[in-house]
Amino acid sequence: MAVVVQNVERADQAVIDRLAAAGVATVHEAQGRKGCLASYIRPIYSGAQVAGSAVTISAPPGDNWMVHVAIEQIREGDILVLAPTSPCDNGYFGDLLATSAQARGCRGLVIDAGVRDVRDLTAMGFPVWSKAISAQGTVKETIGSVNVPIVCAGAAIEAGDVIVADDDGVVVVKRAEAEAIAATAQKRLEAEEEKRKQLADGKLGLDLYAMRERLAEKGLKYV
Amino acid sequence: MAVVVQNVERADQAVIDRLAAAGVATVHEAQGRKGCLASYIRPIYSGAQVAGSAVTISAPPGDNWMVHVAIEQIREGDILVLAPTSPCDNGYFGDLLATSAQARGCRGLVIDAGVRDVRDLTAMGFPVWSKAISAQGTVKETIGSVNVPIVCAGAAIEAGDVIVADDDGVVVVKRAEAEAIAATAQKRLEAEEEKRKQLADGKLGLDLYAMRERLAEKGLKYV
Amino acid sequence: MAVVVQNVERADQAVIDRLAAAGVATVHEAQGRKGCLASYIRPIYSGAQVAGSAVTISAPPGDNWMVHVAIEQIREGDILVLAPTSPCDNGYFGDLLATSAQARGCRGLVIDAGVRDVRDLTAMGFPVWSKAISAQGTVKETIGSVNVPIVCAGAAIEAGDVIVADDDGVVVVKRAEAEAIAATAQKRLEAEEEKRKQLADGKLGLDLYAMRERLAEKGLKYV
Amino acid sequence: MAVVVQNVERADQAVIDRLAAAGVATVHEAQGRKGCLASYIRPIYSGAQVAGSAVTISAPPGDNWMVHVAIEQIREGDILVLAPTSPCDNGYFGDLLATSAQARGCRGLVIDAGVRDVRDLTAMGFPVWSKAISAQGTVKETIGSVNVPIVCAGAAIEAGDVIVADDDGVVVVKRAEAEAIAATAQKRLEAEEEKRKQLADGKLGLDLYAMRERLAEKGLKYV
Amino acid sequence: MAVVVQNVERADQAVIDRLAAAGVATVHEAQGRKGCLASYIRPIYSGAQVAGSAVTISAPPGDNWMVHVAIEQIREGDILVLAPTSPCDNGYFGDLLATSAQARGCRGLVIDAGVRDVRDLTAMGFPVWSKAISAQGTVKETIGSVNVPIVCAGAAIEAGDVIVADDDGVVVVKRAEAEAIAATAQKRLEAEEEKRKQLADGKLGLDLYAMRERLAEKGLKYV
Amino acid sequence: MAVVVQNVERADQAVIDRLAAAGVATVHEAQGRKGCLASYIRPIYSGAQVAGSAVTISAPPGDNWMVHVAIEQIREGDILVLAPTSPCDNGYFGDLLATSAQARGCRGLVIDAGVRDVRDLTAMGFPVWSKAISAQGTVKETIGSVNVPIVCAGAAIEAGDVIVADDDGVVVVKRAEAEAIAATAQKRLEAEEEKRKQLADGKLGLDLYAMRERLAEKGLKYV
Repeated sequence: MAVVVQNVERADQAVIDRLAAAGVATVHEAQGRKGCLASYIRPIYSGAQVAGSAVTISAPPGDNWMVHVAIEQIREGDILVLAPTSPCDNGYFGDLLATSAQARGCRGLVIDAGVRDVRDLTAMGFPVWSKAISAQGTVKETIGSVNVPIVCAGAAIEAGDVIVADDDGVVVVKRAEAEAIAATAQKRLEAEEEKRKQLADGKLGLDLYAMRERLAEKGLKYV
Repeated sequence: MAVVVQNVERADQAVIDRLAAAGVATVHEAQGRKGCLASYIRPIYSGAQVAGSAVTISAPPGDNWMVHVAIEQIREGDILVLAPTSPCDNGYFGDLLATSAQARGCRGLVIDAGVRDVRDLTAMGFPVWSKAISAQGTVKETIGSVNVPIVCAGAAIEAGDVIVADDDGVVVVKRAEAEAIAATAQKRLEAEEEKRKQLADGKLGLDLYAMRERLAEKGLKYV
Repeated sequence: MAVVVQNVERADQAVIDRLAAAGVATVHEAQGRKGCLASYIRPIYSGAQVAGSAVTISAPPGDNWMVHVAIEQIREGDILVLAPTSPCDNGYFGDLLATSAQARGCRGLVIDAGVRDVRDLTAMGFPVWSKAISAQGTVKETIGSVNVPIVCAGAAIEAGDVIVADDDGVVVVKRAEAEAIAATAQKRLEAEEEKRKQLADGKLGLDLYAMRERLAEKGLKYV
Repeated sequence: MAVVVQNVERADQAVIDRLAAAGVATVHEAQGRKGCLASYIRPIYSGAQVAGSAVTISAPPGDNWMVHVAIEQIREGDILVLAPTSPCDNGYFGDLLATSAQARGCRGLVIDAGVRDVRDLTAMGFPVWSKAISAQGTVKETIGSVNVPIVCAGAAIEAGDVIVADDDGVVVVKRAEAEAIAATAQKRLEAEEEKRKQLADGKLGLDLYAMRERLAEKGLKYV
Repeated sequence: MAVVVQNVERADQAVIDRLAAAGVATVHEAQGRKGCLASYIRPIYSGAQVAGSAVTISAPPGDNWMVHVAIEQIREGDILVLAPTSPCDNGYFGDLLATSAQARGCRGLVIDAGVRDVRDLTAMGFPVWSKAISAQGTVKETIGSVNVPIVCAGAAIEAGDVIVADDDGVVVVKRAEAEAIAATAQKRLEAEEEKRKQLADGKLGLDLYAMRERLAEKGLKYV
Repeated sequence: MAVVVQNVERADQAVIDRLAAAGVATVHEAQGRKGCLASYIRPIYSGAQVAGSAVTISAPPGDNWMVHVAIEQIREGDILVLAPTSPCDNGYFGDLLATSAQARGCRGLVIDAGVRDVRDLTAMGFPVWSKAISAQGTVKETIGSVNVPIVCAGAAIEAGDVIVADDDGVVVVKRAEAEAIAATAQKRLEAEEEKRKQLADGKLGLDLYAMRERLAEKGLKYV
């Protein structure tokens, strides 16, 4: 039941980097408004914008043993994603684990629980998106699993899926769809650029998107 | 039922600016400790301190169509205020809408729901006070109303009421009371200045406010 | 029932300062993973790291009268700790009270309720750890107690206990245990330094902490 | 600022009774899906279904003095509606107040805070819809207002508005609209009866409401 | 993107019935302590204990159109399972939909949102496990999907998985594992019967499970 | 650090029984409005009203091993009180543990976490006041302590303190104060009886408690 899956397929790194550049909101729209983690997952500092392949961790509440196990599975460019098996806000992860993960090429952590040493993590430039910041420590008594499918903050995630994270939160892209989504996201960004100019010039969205007729049909009245 | 009220009376701009300068806590005290929105409404970045006339939006959960409609109703110095008709944390508003609103003279957004593109909004200097930050997008299928009375984060707000917002949160001032409240707020600020000096010199509030006798009457014992 | 306890024993200031330097996560581990306040208690600004002797306040919901009483009891280096007698998010404390407390040597406030004037408090360098930021004011009608045992954010605190607070949150150390905990914390910091180097060099925690055998015994399978 | 409004207009009692008979869900639909209080407001026991004219109470957190004041304003068939001026879960109301209110003809209480003595209230048949059940008592130190406009659990309510409450929660109907809404609600109930029979016979809503074509136009695919 | 999957494989009905008889806690233990939905999902009335094959619904916030679509897909013994695409507590489901679902053989509803008409549903004996009870209605404007994989209250669920629900909450069993889990659950029930007798006779768990030695090894001290 | 304190002093059983008869709200008032546990602690069924001496349990999140240890410490009439060392909603306790505890004379459980098998517990007449109902099971890997001081749902509790619990929630009475509080509670009950009669006869609280003058002094206006 407690397993470590070792050889996980990843998406192409260039695709992953294009998803990082597009950002969470755009990627989420590009894949049909799905894949966002719950909005309570927040970055510990502003300004980070990353993407990476998920190394998933299913851990018991209050037990961070499997983080050590997961770090061995990290490849350059990966992101750790931890979901406790029941709600928990303990600080599973701090500066020592971040040092170890960063040494293995890890780009960040997404955790549906707590993190600590946030001042050090910020200084190290190791970004974390978490449910809580908590100094409350954990034990190493009960095993869990690494690289199995998990549900993290309401999103189903498999090892090797692409995680995109920035100040707007976190979105997951299925590995098999990553390339197509990256392409769609790029098109959205280009289309937005033109719209932004027109809106900045004072053109109304009502006109730009030709909404007036449909609003009237729906029954909107101006008084 | 779904209406856009077009000609909304606003308070005098000079009054609004004095309320902005006074800040949320002082304005709230000046009007008898009322009008604060719930404390879960937080700014997406620190340091903004604004006031403006409310352009109100009543929108269905997960549907931001009426934001486009509301932007047409903005006049220089207004603030958009959106309340969903049931609890929702979707990102109703992002950088394109902010570009459009800013082009119309909008000073900010207060929303009892989510916002996204917060990095861009911060760079633009477009302040938002929201319940959540969320990349989760919305649809444009169901109409709502603009400039009708709403309840936003526990406060009843009418179009044209004055919204004051800063790092302490958001307070609403009834349009008809704005001038009187601005005057009272100004007096409070002046009175506080003198108190601040005495407190900084080490004088105790117990003495400055002559509290000792009343505390003893209430039964407070020193042991 | 409503009392002010005046002569509270404090821990040695040098010990308190060493606890401040160790930080919340380390101190919490050093005392056997206990004493953390709930993770919803957050600093109003990043970067403060302080410790001090607790001046405790038990106050009714929505009534900050006892804060004035407590300020008289502050000695150089103390920290105010307020727990309302039932859940409340009102802004009990703002810049005038902070001016007064700071003039008495207070190093900060921990409050299981709200605080306001956070921009001013940040400018003053007066750190606060709170449940909420709220402009909603309070009255001065009902008395409470100062320097009695309280439960604040899930932690039992007595006057004179040492409060340590930083970006990870807040931990309380029993006065009688402060010296021993400071020593243990110091040893942990030194031990961590060596581990950090090895982890930064790419050594795995699995090997550094010799975990592999015990994981296998527990039944962990690699697939 | 603290006032008791004494002569409040009520809706016709026969209209109120028809709204009670229609129930919350139907009344809410009849008035265009508005007026529901937040879903955290729950009955202390199942099975009550009432309507009455609102006697509103704006009370400070942790202070139930104004309930005594409000009881004098009750007329036969009224419902007390209490909103604290900031979030509070104290037990403002228990069996003595219920005895007094019931003696004045009060049909129930809606409170965005706590209630206690729920076993007694249940035995008395005095229904309450509340945010919390809590034995935590209150003081009588600070005044508030009676029969002023309030926001209770997210709904704006004026004295004399009609409150309808049952196992589904609480809805408010504007006094001036009560008669029209009662008529519309009645029509909905009659229309539902016919639909219920067809659905019970196995007819699908897809066919009964002729949804198939519109679903196909929207792009729904069967695979 | 919006699809209805029509031919879903179900587990054997006899297996499903054995899982129902075992109940949620036992089934959850039998499959290795996994599959529970979040504890905020509660039954609208006590005493129901059911199991059935999941007909899954992914619906937009505030839009119950897909429930009508899903009802056509119900086979005798199924359970509807609805997850909104973002948090929502609206009442998606009431007595008319329950009448229709029941006519098709549906055994209940699990919904990570709200339900209404709970008095009628109770009278009908149609059990619902929900996040909220709310009269707030929904629209029929935006399509979603039926019988696609969803995440409901923190659990990943596929169409045809077995849902078991009782007063302790809800657990999901993968279709392919249902038979094995039913067998394991049966063995647990039998083993518990013997333990129950010994515990009722006053034998301690410490002795029955031979825990004393291991506790002493871990360092537990009796004082 | 992990200890079991074996010889705990209890209050007199007759005193405990009088506290049970008085009920939570009255006891809480009798001791000066203190000692209530947070209102999220709710009974799993209505109608139980008990008191007993606390056998306290400090347990790690997701680990119920110490419940077995605690059961050995139960004496006739005790109540188990469990606080996890960090927030957790797992089902620590079910019908087997209840069978064992009941066999030892235990009158109930108060737990700031989850409970399961609630249908069986109800049938057994074993009352539980909990934060959650959850089938999610726990492990037996990490030790904790029994009969040490804990904070449970915001209240500081020592072994041997008297726990009173009913439909209004839970209150703790210090052992040393139990006799005095029981006497005060009895007087309150008698005084209430007379007031109840007068209120039932229509006398207003405003008159019964002579509030009118003080309200006028505070500035209350009738309009």
